[in-house]
Amino acid sequence: MANNITKKVSWSGEGTPLLNGAEERRYSGEPSGGSMFHIGRMSTVDLEEESTPEEQDPMRLRPSVIPHNEKLLSLKYESLDYDNLENQLFLEEERRMGHMSFRCLEICRWFICGLIGFLTGLIACLIDILVEKLAGAKYGVIKKYIDKFTEAGGLSISMILWAVLNLAFIMVGAIIVAFIEPVAAGSGIPQIKCYLNGVKIPRVVRLKTLVMKVFGVILSVAGGLAVGKEGPMIHSGAVVAAGVSQGRSTSLKKDLKIFEYFRRDTEKRDFVSAGAAAGVSAAFGAPVGGVLFSLEEGASFWNQMLTWRIFFASMISTFTLNFFMSIYNGKLGELSNPGLINFGRFESESVKYNLYEIPLFIIMGAVGGVLGAVFNTINYWLTIFRIRYVHQRCLQVMEAMLVAAVSATVSFTMIYFSVDCQPLKNDSQEEYPLQLFCADGEYNAMATAFFNTPERSVRSLFHSPPGTYNLLTLGLFTLTYFFLACWTYGLTVSAGVFIPSLLIGAAWGRLFGIMLGFFPTTNNLWADPGKYALMGAAAQLGGIVRMTLSLTVILVEATGNVTYGLPIMLVLMTAKIVGDYFIEGLYDIHIRLQSVPFLHWEAPATSHWLTAREVMSSPVTYFNRVEKVGTIVDILSATSTNHNGFPVVVQAGAIDEPRKLCGLILRSQLIVLLKHKVFVERVRSGLCKRRLQLKDFRDAYPRFPPIQSIHVSQDERECMMDLTEFMNPTPYTVPEETSLPRVFKLFRALGLRHLVVVDDQNRVTGLVTRKDLARYHMGKHGLEELGLTHP
Amino acid sequence: MANNITKKVSWSGEGTPLLNGAEERRYSGEPSGGSMFHIGRMSTVDLEEESTPEEQDPMRLRPSVIPHNEKLLSLKYESLDYDNLENQLFLEEERRMGHMSFRCLEICRWFICGLIGFLTGLIACLIDILVEKLAGAKYGVIKKYIDKFTEAGGLSISMILWAVLNLAFIMVGAIIVAFIEPVAAGSGIPQIKCYLNGVKIPRVVRLKTLVMKVFGVILSVAGGLAVGKEGPMIHSGAVVAAGVSQGRSTSLKKDLKIFEYFRRDTEKRDFVSAGAAAGVSAAFGAPVGGVLFSLEEGASFWNQMLTWRIFFASMISTFTLNFFMSIYNGKLGELSNPGLINFGRFESESVKYNLYEIPLFIIMGAVGGVLGAVFNTINYWLTIFRIRYVHQRCLQVMEAMLVAAVSATVSFTMIYFSVDCQPLKNDSQEEYPLQLFCADGEYNAMATAFFNTPERSVRSLFHSPPGTYNLLTLGLFTLTYFFLACWTYGLTVSAGVFIPSLLIGAAWGRLFGIMLGFFPTTNNLWADPGKYALMGAAAQLGGIVRMTLSLTVILVEATGNVTYGLPIMLVLMTAKIVGDYFIEGLYDIHIRLQSVPFLHWEAPATSHWLTAREVMSSPVTYFNRVEKVGTIVDILSATSTNHNGFPVVVQAGAIDEPRKLCGLILRSQLIVLLKHKVFVERVRSGLCKRRLQLKDFRDAYPRFPPIQSIHVSQDERECMMDLTEFMNPTPYTVPEETSLPRVFKLFRALGLRHLVVVDDQNRVTGLVTRKDLARYHMGKHGLEELGLTHP
Repeated sequence: MANNITKKVSWSGEGTPLLNGAEERRYSGEPSGGSMFHIGRMSTVDLEEESTPEEQDPMRLRPSVIPHNEKLLSLKYESLDYDNLENQLFLEEERRMGHMSFRCLEICRWFICGLIGFLTGLIACLIDILVEKLAGAKYGVIKKYIDKFTEAGGLSISMILWAVLNLAFIMVGAIIVAFIEPVAAGSGIPQIKCYLNGVKIPRVVRLKTLVMKVFGVILSVAGGLAVGKEGPMIHSGAVVAAGVSQGRSTSLKKDLKIFEYFRRDTEKRDFVSAGAAAGVSAAFGAPVGGVLFSLEEGASFWNQMLTWRIFFASMISTFTLNFFMSIYNGKLGELSNPGLINFGRFESESVKYNLYEIPLFIIMGAVGGVLGAVFNTINYWLTIFRIRYVHQRCLQVMEAMLVAAVSATVSFTMIYFSVDCQPLKNDSQEEYPLQLFCADGEYNAMATAFFNTPERSVRSLFHSPPGTYNLLTLGLFTLTYFFLACWTYGLTVSAGVFIPSLLIGAAWGRLFGIMLGFFPTTNNLWADPGKYALMGAAAQLGGIVRMTLSLTVILVEATGNVTYGLPIMLVLMTAKIVGDYFIEGLYDIHIRLQSVPFLHWEAPATSHWLTAREVMSSPVTYFNRVEKVGTIVDILSATSTNHNGFPVVVQAGAIDEPRKLCGLILRSQLIVLLKHKVFVERVRSGLCKRRLQLKDFRDAYPRFPPIQSIHVSQDERECMMDLTEFMNPTPYTVPEETSLPRVFKLFRALGLRHLVVVDDQNRVTGLVTRKDLARYHMGKHGLEELGLTHP
Repeated sequence: MANNITKKVSWSGEGTPLLNGAEERRYSGEPSGGSMFHIGRMSTVDLEEESTPEEQDPMRLRPSVIPHNEKLLSLKYESLDYDNLENQLFLEEERRMGHMSFRCLEICRWFICGLIGFLTGLIACLIDILVEKLAGAKYGVIKKYIDKFTEAGGLSISMILWAVLNLAFIMVGAIIVAFIEPVAAGSGIPQIKCYLNGVKIPRVVRLKTLVMKVFGVILSVAGGLAVGKEGPMIHSGAVVAAGVSQGRSTSLKKDLKIFEYFRRDTEKRDFVSAGAAAGVSAAFGAPVGGVLFSLEEGASFWNQMLTWRIFFASMISTFTLNFFMSIYNGKLGELSNPGLINFGRFESESVKYNLYEIPLFIIMGAVGGVLGAVFNTINYWLTIFRIRYVHQRCLQVMEAMLVAAVSATVSFTMIYFSVDCQPLKNDSQEEYPLQLFCADGEYNAMATAFFNTPERSVRSLFHSPPGTYNLLTLGLFTLTYFFLACWTYGLTVSAGVFIPSLLIGAAWGRLFGIMLGFFPTTNNLWADPGKYALMGAAAQLGGIVRMTLSLTVILVEATGNVTYGLPIMLVLMTAKIVGDYFIEGLYDIHIRLQSVPFLHWEAPATSHWLTAREVMSSPVTYFNRVEKVGTIVDILSATSTNHNGFPVVVQAGAIDEPRKLCGLILRSQLIVLLKHKVFVERVRSGLCKRRLQLKDFRDAYPRFPPIQSIHVSQDERECMMDLTEFMNPTPYTVPEETSLPRVFKLFRALGLRHLVVVDDQNRVTGLVTRKDLARYHMGKHGLEELGLTHP
């Protein structure tokens, strides 16, 4: 990471020098007989390395607080192929298929979506029940101790017990994540966002990840961290989808030989969208919210049929969860039981709001935006600190344990010093009321907030009657929980940020509501602080994650009441606008810090200066339609370039005529061809008669072996290989003059991985990939260009 | 219409003869000096006309019941340009604009969306209030007469009064639609769907249309037809959006000189989406539903920022409506007043459902699907009848009046013979209880259903306590209203089908609920028929219009309760699946019957047989980069071809070298160029020094004059015109071998209007337009090809 090169160019106004600069990089069109040029992206890097980095990058001269990795894109992330590879084999298969086959496929898709929903619902159910059981056991034991020792003065024993229990849970949770499957850390939402965007995050949708995620999150929540289980549920749904839709598991070494048609990135992505939606649906009981989440965070091309399948998966997921939870709650079949609504139902009578409150809601939204920005900024610095200094797995586990210990200590201290005693009611939301130093028949209100799973605390803040919490309790709780949650997010444990955000917001929202009560009104307008708790929760969550449409629907569905739809929208919209003024959303920050080549919705506004000629990689490594095996092996083995797509060219007539583009072939396809030794000479000599089929490619998907694992003998190196049948004969192309926004739109709308740039003779002059587009982004001073780094 | 040619080819299996047939159509690449080929699509038609139509079309031999226009696509519909025309002028403008200008534009967009929402809300408010006042006055007068004459036996006078009042309303409503603005007929949703799909429906977003639509719908509803005001509200929102975003009105001859940047199809479409969403939002009080409606019915490329703007417009629209309605209802500022929820709020306590009811809901969904299919089939035949025999405006007005008279008579008869007397309660939903022959203190239940605006009837069916209606009343009402609504949809009045569908469904749903009550249960499970009324309404509406996701959200928002979300989804999904088995949705039927070249979401499944070579129009009329004015005028004036896009080619070197594609220019641009006489010679001689700017194109948008209105003298004809600056230098291209699904995907995802097909030398060989793609669709026996017809 130390010798990375950062390049920053000011685009303010003078485009001409840049255009000239780019001209130099252009393909020089050598007419020699050499079959390929083998420089690729390295040319750019070479150019830069000739000059000292200081000359190139004024940013490095001043002692910048921004770390270098933020101005770089990592080359370690590969892209997914969301554009179908329509080669001859594929077209032949499609043409063989009749109307009925397509209908069967469609039914299969619906069936798989149903299965995804069902399994996701089951997993959510498992997480819910295990968290409840584990946390219940823990709180039960501690409560017993506290009740026993409060009078005796031995509270420190309870405190130590609490801390030790939490530490134990978190240690196990952190160890399985750090040592077994690091990609299971965090909420998983940024990873799913990247996946749906088209970036291949290694191991993100594997079965092992799922198992670690599920047990990790159960331990994290039971371990009393300031975390939620919702993000991991979404990730779990996505993994389930990826697994089910492929009909096999590499982890289990099991191939059911079904759903083979769906073994490609395009189809898999569709199912993963459905899985993520099913996850949201199970996490919040919000099927429509789930669909919108998938669309807002992932989709680019909206397809009606796909949306309906996603919707179906979401529906089944909520249904499954509700059904099993109704059994668990002993109310078999009562699907509309209010207990199934996550944050408790807001009854219609108590939820009135008036025009006069709209400005208040907007103010709350703004406060949420600011607090969210503060949260994100602190977490941003923390994450950079972690990237720099907390690499080692042991350190990561220790940090998680430290946070667990601090959480327990702080909570205990807060409860201990709290003087907010409330009379004990029978119908109250608390399951573990702590009496502590309160009089008999009373309980400690601070303990309600801390001594509970975060979900229950949110519920209590929403629905407890006025007067349940006093100002000081809420203020202190907000403050502590804010910093705890902020510190916790990004730890090497499996945990989400939704519920902590809601909890922080609910606390200060309720505080806000109580404070409003000090203003005298005629009609007891501010009677219900629960309403403000909800708005605060929305504002805080919106300020942190910056979703609007999907979050509105999720919150409406999770509270079981649409009356607040309009104010929630207003609050979320305000929080987003205010928050965006300061810093990005939390997920986007984490994506950026990982240097992922993430493509946003649109090209930067001021990027019309740039054309395909400037952004493309050039010259391009290409193959002839019939290419020597040795050449192919050499190119694929070259470690300096790690190209994944190669244009295929053909020489139309005489030897001096230019080579025309005639197709595009992927590294993965070439690997399969080499593995099966589909060489022209050998076919002729009868050594390899079997014709390669689409099935061979599907069997190898998605984990194609590296080129090093394929042995090619010296004899074989002299053979030729005919790529005609396997290449995509109709890759999308653009002329060199195409503006960046136009290239971007084509790339994003179709989910491309490679876009060939051709001149007016249809000769290949460059190749645009995701990284070439993701490099340009809007900085504070206009368009900025990120550097590229090898992992 | 009589001499249209229909071509039907069976694609089952043997693709070879077709491919050969297509080869003949290929561009023969004449190397002569002629600057353009001027045959285009006609070549196909010519080929077909040589053989007798009977040979070509086996369908015409048997007396087919299917009319020919259904197998044809009309050529009268032009397309919209949803792909930005990135010519030099545009790029220069974009490059001149700084970061701040783009930010200002973005703020402008938000402002416009807010304005759209506000105005749409106001219009909805106006419609609501006027309908209520007019219908209230009407029912008041009639009730007075009925009450007065029931004892005296002169009921026929009341009956005549009722019929005459209705006739008067409908006559005016039909006349303004038929004679002033025919495009204002119907619900407007199919037209908006087409618009968002990219088809230019003439006059659909004009101010005049808006005015006629608004007054038309007020009169239709007040006139007692079986119609709703929701569809027209959606259309109104779209018109408002189109008007506001352009900053001018051609009808009013007023140009505010603002928002000039937005004067192109791409931007306008975005605003129209927002307007349609705002319309839904105002019609049902469903802002999220509105956004989903816009996406489900229109969008292809999902853009997050755009979605948020649409969401904002929807939100403002509901807000405005609620605010003004709260003033109208005398409860200023009470925005969560249950009276503002369209179909009345379902209170949480009464809305429980159980697992055992899920199968019942699914059965209801299936019934809804079947009934919807019956409705659509009847309306389909009716529409064909209307297209064939009810052309004349007078006839159309008379049909509308006939329906009005029949509606009144049937309603009256039903009420008259009804023996369903119910005790009068104070808290009942009815505003105009009719006593008729019932005892004192009782009222006629049948009259509640008929003697009310449809909205109020729906509300009553949803919320009246058990026992309000008896079986016979509901059965008869369902039957009559079904046929009335079916007859009414498609009349030349401005009216929607949402509310009548809901009403039919609510009636049979309630009937279903009451019948369930006959089965003995232990726990009074079927106590509330209102729940079944809601499910029936959802099923019926879903069976007719076949929306799922957006309709679920709309119904949830319009009933103010999310508990029913899950069952509503199930019902809608079932209704869609069952209904789709029989016939398309109502809107799609109407779109198809209008022969609109509508592009669906995906290419037909079995269309991999086809490649760009077969679907493209060829040979193509093209221009040289510097072209003679006379040639341009001649081509544009040719009536036989009405091309709108022309590839621009350039001769690289020697005269015998092939012409390479270098751009694409539109008819509209050429017209503006001709109008401003931007000729090379004239510029040189100093006659036309002013350089053409983007503003000139924007001023002419969207009603470019016809070529006939532009006078070009004989001298000018000899001048040359340089197209370099004005053409789009980077049109998207595909090779000839590209499969139809791939072409389709590119076309649909990017909202293209023309797609140039090139050979491997980058020479133009064909042009694919919307009609070429829309021609292929899945018929009952596999892929079918529609013919093209000139209007």
